Amino acid sequence: MRMYDLILKKRNGGVLTEEEIDFMVKGYTEGNIPDYQMSALMMAVYFKGMNEAETLALTMAMRDSGEVLDLSAIKGVKVDKHSTGGVGDKTSLTLTPMVAACGIPVAKMSGRGLGHTGGTIDKLESFAGFSTEIDTDTFVQNVNQIGIAIMGQTANLAPADKKLYALRDVTATVDNMSLIASSIMSKKLAAGADAIVLDVKTGSGAFMKKESDAFLLAEEMVKIGKGAGKKCVAVVTDMDQPLGYAVGNALEVKEAIDTLKGNGPADFYELCLTLGTQMLLAGGAAETETEAREKLEQTITDGSALRKLAAFVEAQGGDAAAVYDTSLLPRASFKKELLADKDGYISGITCDEVGICSLILGGGRETKESEIDLSVGIVLQKKKGDAVKTGDVLAVLYANDEVKLETAMDRLEKAYCITEKPPMMTPFIKGIVR
Amino acid sequence: MRMYDLILKKRNGGVLTEEEIDFMVKGYTEGNIPDYQMSALMMAVYFKGMNEAETLALTMAMRDSGEVLDLSAIKGVKVDKHSTGGVGDKTSLTLTPMVAACGIPVAKMSGRGLGHTGGTIDKLESFAGFSTEIDTDTFVQNVNQIGIAIMGQTANLAPADKKLYALRDVTATVDNMSLIASSIMSKKLAAGADAIVLDVKTGSGAFMKKESDAFLLAEEMVKIGKGAGKKCVAVVTDMDQPLGYAVGNALEVKEAIDTLKGNGPADFYELCLTLGTQMLLAGGAAETETEAREKLEQTITDGSALRKLAAFVEAQGGDAAAVYDTSLLPRASFKKELLADKDGYISGITCDEVGICSLILGGGRETKESEIDLSVGIVLQKKKGDAVKTGDVLAVLYANDEVKLETAMDRLEKAYCITEKPPMMTPFIKGIVR
Repeated sequence: MRMYDLILKKRNGGVLTEEEIDFMVKGYTEGNIPDYQMSALMMAVYFKGMNEAETLALTMAMRDSGEVLDLSAIKGVKVDKHSTGGVGDKTSLTLTPMVAACGIPVAKMSGRGLGHTGGTIDKLESFAGFSTEIDTDTFVQNVNQIGIAIMGQTANLAPADKKLYALRDVTATVDNMSLIASSIMSKKLAAGADAIVLDVKTGSGAFMKKESDAFLLAEEMVKIGKGAGKKCVAVVTDMDQPLGYAVGNALEVKEAIDTLKGNGPADFYELCLTLGTQMLLAGGAAETETEAREKLEQTITDGSALRKLAAFVEAQGGDAAAVYDTSLLPRASFKKELLADKDGYISGITCDEVGICSLILGGGRETKESEIDLSVGIVLQKKKGDAVKTGDVLAVLYANDEVKLETAMDRLEKAYCITEKPPMMTPFIKGIVR
Repeated sequence: MRMYDLILKKRNGGVLTEEEIDFMVKGYTEGNIPDYQMSALMMAVYFKGMNEAETLALTMAMRDSGEVLDLSAIKGVKVDKHSTGGVGDKTSLTLTPMVAACGIPVAKMSGRGLGHTGGTIDKLESFAGFSTEIDTDTFVQNVNQIGIAIMGQTANLAPADKKLYALRDVTATVDNMSLIASSIMSKKLAAGADAIVLDVKTGSGAFMKKESDAFLLAEEMVKIGKGAGKKCVAVVTDMDQPLGYAVGNALEVKEAIDTLKGNGPADFYELCLTLGTQMLLAGGAAETETEAREKLEQTITDGSALRKLAAFVEAQGGDAAAVYDTSLLPRASFKKELLADKDGYISGITCDEVGICSLILGGGRETKESEIDLSVGIVLQKKKGDAVKTGDVLAVLYANDEVKLETAMDRLEKAYCITEKPPMMTPFIKGIVR
């Protein structure tokens, strides 16, 4: 078998066999197939696409290119959740304790973030002493005892995907549904869960700007998940403005905790309930959506989800006191308010721009080597559809550097759009793909 | 400017500017743009194409990536001829002395062949002592005095094309008219001629199997030539069976000499007259096609073309006696006849297969390092349309190795197709593109 022939076949619109895809992924991972052949093939895939069988074969081959976690030592149905990412997405911090409190074991591999804010691990490090550097035995033991454990992602999870994504990123071959879906799913499948619930974001702050694209991606991923023998469901949700109000690491942790205390933003709480419902159904912890939703709401009203978070933070060396007193979380030196310069309605907030403001303040990583400032960020006070009067506070910026604060302030001001008439509002939950 | 953006632009169907193409070719030649980005762009070009301006810009950028020969020290209008290649193509050997005898200076860069038989230089080395390793002064002096000189191709002629072609060759991105045309023309333009006559082959033994494709390529190349300010014309000719009868180095030299003596195969002689006519017109050595043709025929009947060949061979150290006595050319030890096994008509000869037989006998190079056996090859006795009886000689094979001879014999037998009824014959000269 020669890579040349596979490029030619795909270029001419042919369908690659499972054997051919295995050969290609294995050869590329081992360095026997050069980058220049793989990038040519990726461009041919961009133009000619891959069918369902090819997409599944690619995903499985990438999954099998490294370690595939065996979570059989963990009791119960392991349900994993994945979000395609956006601005202010602190969902794991709130959702995980909620479902764990309902008896769904959460055994999660998480990464550090690259971009607007940190990833889940960065955010959790807002709890002094918290560490994800735990060994597999502790990991399994913690899940079985507490119901939650989070480990840093091992280097050897789907290495083929890592190498291939880096190549696609510099050769303009990222934008293909099959390739995007197989990239995400290869990692999720390698992480060993029994069921996967996907949160596919759409809007100005999402990778999928168009709602129709988000649904296509959701369908691709669900097909792969099912093809791999897993329970799999995707929820398409809004990311046309930041999720909740807080953007920034410790600020998001505070909002996640507030939500567990019953004081969360409506959109964010609704998202946790919707995703949680699917997780409970997939994990067999509820029979109907209504039952699932009631159980999840119960974890907030009875405080069991909040206690679950505290137990989890403590088990991984973190200062759980901050769960009950969020003033113990990292705090920035300065804050400044952005004020409305006219009367009207917030007709939109350019989501990506808010993320970039957080990055400017120091809350995200520009390169893998960047250090994150956990304390900085933005807390929006007004969101789309809200009526405002001149002088109303639109948002509060938290910073440790006055120059960065001014730069971010200028930029954030431009992200808000105020109009005379109220905007058309669209549903927050766009739909569910099963 | 970033290569990534150029890939994206072309992928999305955009038109690259001259500045962008210059950046890309320069960066790639200098090694600042990696292979994997270039191969992705080439695949995008395969799907999205390049317009006339882009194709010209690419050609010019590749031409300018290395040395561009200055032939101004040579008197007269320098006319170059290029063939897209085929089996039994000894045209340069006959055509060059014919046009030189008509006063058109021939200053040629030639390469060694890779494939069925050697290139022009290899074939010329059938004259004992002949060398193309001459310096530029001798080269210019010989053209001015004799009318012909041939130099080995310098390494630095259009290096961008060399690098790019090698990449396209392993990434299934060769088959694009603009890329093929710009590759050929960048080298021809760097070789410094004032006018270019192209021989575009079509049929089973040609790179362009389909006649319509050959015309498209011819049109692309002529547009580039004119865009570069040169006189340029292309002749589309048949390569559905070998050209003439002889395939193999010294065997082809003998056939070329026989043609100069007035005893050449009809198709081959017609090709020389057709191409020569265009060369004389481009070089201003004739006013009309009729005049050009008569002048060329005259060089055969008066022996001036044959004497021109002898003078040229001698000037470059070769034994010119072989021009007058072809029995002095390298000769193989064995020969064997392939006989017809039934009565009928030759309905076709699989052209590539005859080439491969020559390669098997040792007449061509499988790799750049292979040594060529100049004496071996095949001389066809019957060609398409000929009537045959059982036992008639179809071809004679010349070899120095009995095992190779038997292998080639088996293969050649399968290349001949004999049918009861005579085949449809198509014209040898398909058309001229101006």
